[in-house]
Amino acid sequence: MKITIDHLDKEFQHKKVLQGIDLSFEEGKIYGLLGRNGAGKSTLLNIINNRLFPTNGTVVLDGKNVTDSEKVQNHFYLMSDENLYPSTLTIDAIYHLTEKFYGAFDWEFARELIRQFDVEPKDKFKKLSTGYRTIVKLIAALCVPSDFVFLDEPVLGLDANHRELFYSTLLAAYEKRQRTFVISTHLIEEVADLLEEVVIIDQGKVLRNCPTEEISGEGKTISGPTEAVEAFASGMKILGKETLGGLTSIYIAGNIDKPVPDNLRVTPLTLQAYFIQLTNKGEES
Amino acid sequence: MKITIDHLDKEFQHKKVLQGIDLSFEEGKIYGLLGRNGAGKSTLLNIINNRLFPTNGTVVLDGKNVTDSEKVQNHFYLMSDENLYPSTLTIDAIYHLTEKFYGAFDWEFARELIRQFDVEPKDKFKKLSTGYRTIVKLIAALCVPSDFVFLDEPVLGLDANHRELFYSTLLAAYEKRQRTFVISTHLIEEVADLLEEVVIIDQGKVLRNCPTEEISGEGKTISGPTEAVEAFASGMKILGKETLGGLTSIYIAGNIDKPVPDNLRVTPLTLQAYFIQLTNKGEES
Repeated sequence: MKITIDHLDKEFQHKKVLQGIDLSFEEGKIYGLLGRNGAGKSTLLNIINNRLFPTNGTVVLDGKNVTDSEKVQNHFYLMSDENLYPSTLTIDAIYHLTEKFYGAFDWEFARELIRQFDVEPKDKFKKLSTGYRTIVKLIAALCVPSDFVFLDEPVLGLDANHRELFYSTLLAAYEKRQRTFVISTHLIEEVADLLEEVVIIDQGKVLRNCPTEEISGEGKTISGPTEAVEAFASGMKILGKETLGGLTSIYIAGNIDKPVPDNLRVTPLTLQAYFIQLTNKGEES
Repeated sequence: MKITIDHLDKEFQHKKVLQGIDLSFEEGKIYGLLGRNGAGKSTLLNIINNRLFPTNGTVVLDGKNVTDSEKVQNHFYLMSDENLYPSTLTIDAIYHLTEKFYGAFDWEFARELIRQFDVEPKDKFKKLSTGYRTIVKLIAALCVPSDFVFLDEPVLGLDANHRELFYSTLLAAYEKRQRTFVISTHLIEEVADLLEEVVIIDQGKVLRNCPTEEISGEGKTISGPTEAVEAFASGMKILGKETLGGLTSIYIAGNIDKPVPDNLRVTPLTLQAYFIQLTNKGEES
């Protein structure tokens, strides 16, 4: 099973939100869909999931057009900021409604997650905090039988512990049953280790579409005491810089062709550093 | 000017969401209001801002009860997930409406922020992405003349560049006119340097309420090559651990009373590490 997106455009009131998107999502892989605010990520996910019509182009699942077949849409699930059910429902009722639409809801897993995330199934959705609304939606997204699960900002409003719990839960769910997850998030560093493939979009266009490890091979992270790192990286193409507890990491493009001093560490480039450098181009500072 | 919260309780359907909250917010300071999902942060902010009634207790501004005086409420502004205006309005119309309610809207600053964040004032609010909805609300919160500005999850859905831009903008606004900001966020590490005072709540109770620097004095961060850090910290009270680019930071409680090897760095405890350790107690893992 494979989703193929071909020459997709979307205009809103003469504003080009998506321009010539060519992409594919394969079966059983975890993708990161990354982009700055307003890049077009949510628009793309909404078109794939038949909530918006494209201006031009097609989205096809194994030869069948996605935007005019309800049968095809049964393979897809989109978790997003929008709520498609009445917010006066209880959490329990929302999961029963989800089961009616998608079938084969994994109640055993749902009950486990309800306990781990400390959810009260009798609470009404509209009474929940931002963080708990996200948690309730995440549980649904992990328990539906869909082959393609799209998660638009899955950790919105989640505290650090709950974010960690979600990442490990996602991996556990994936190992139990391999399906495709497409994750759109702004907390790139936290999610980088989960992603097999990365799609970076900017101003409605695909800038990069490749395995995550390809990006980490394109540069290095040099870490150690600030002065030593800066002296060593001098003359290299510096992409970014970060400090933690008195130490500095500098991100550089390309490889290192001189001996590394004992007090420095050299590791692969991080996805977050690459992303910031790529999408920052031409920005006024 | 000072807000005094005294013996505040809030129950929803026999569930105690806030229990015996005693707190004060002074003029011209930047506070962090930290807590896990469901701790009661938003409920507290909604009571202070007269959107919810307390079950018991009082919120007083300079001797005047906050919950029964509209005049007093004019000193307060709450930016939160809820939208109090019709979402069919344009951004520009929302700012004009905000000016009608709060007076003396800082249009010059608003225009500067609209340019920096790349906002289109003629766009309708309901058509915006999650990130841009947050940006539009942030601009309003920074341009109202209120003496107390409460920001409930101010970076919800913002990309890394926009988060950085917001933090520097907040500081610039504060330097231009000192007022009180109370910031509730889950991205503690990013915001820690901005906070003068920290209030940590957990399960409806205040766990900690002190200057930020008091917390950083209660422990240390030891950073360096993983093996060396682990060997050195062995036998110490370890609060947490983090890695970045091949290096490890271990957070410990208390002071270090032995010589530090040359390849390690010792710096103050981070707020994030302290928070996680404090609010994790008793959690099943």
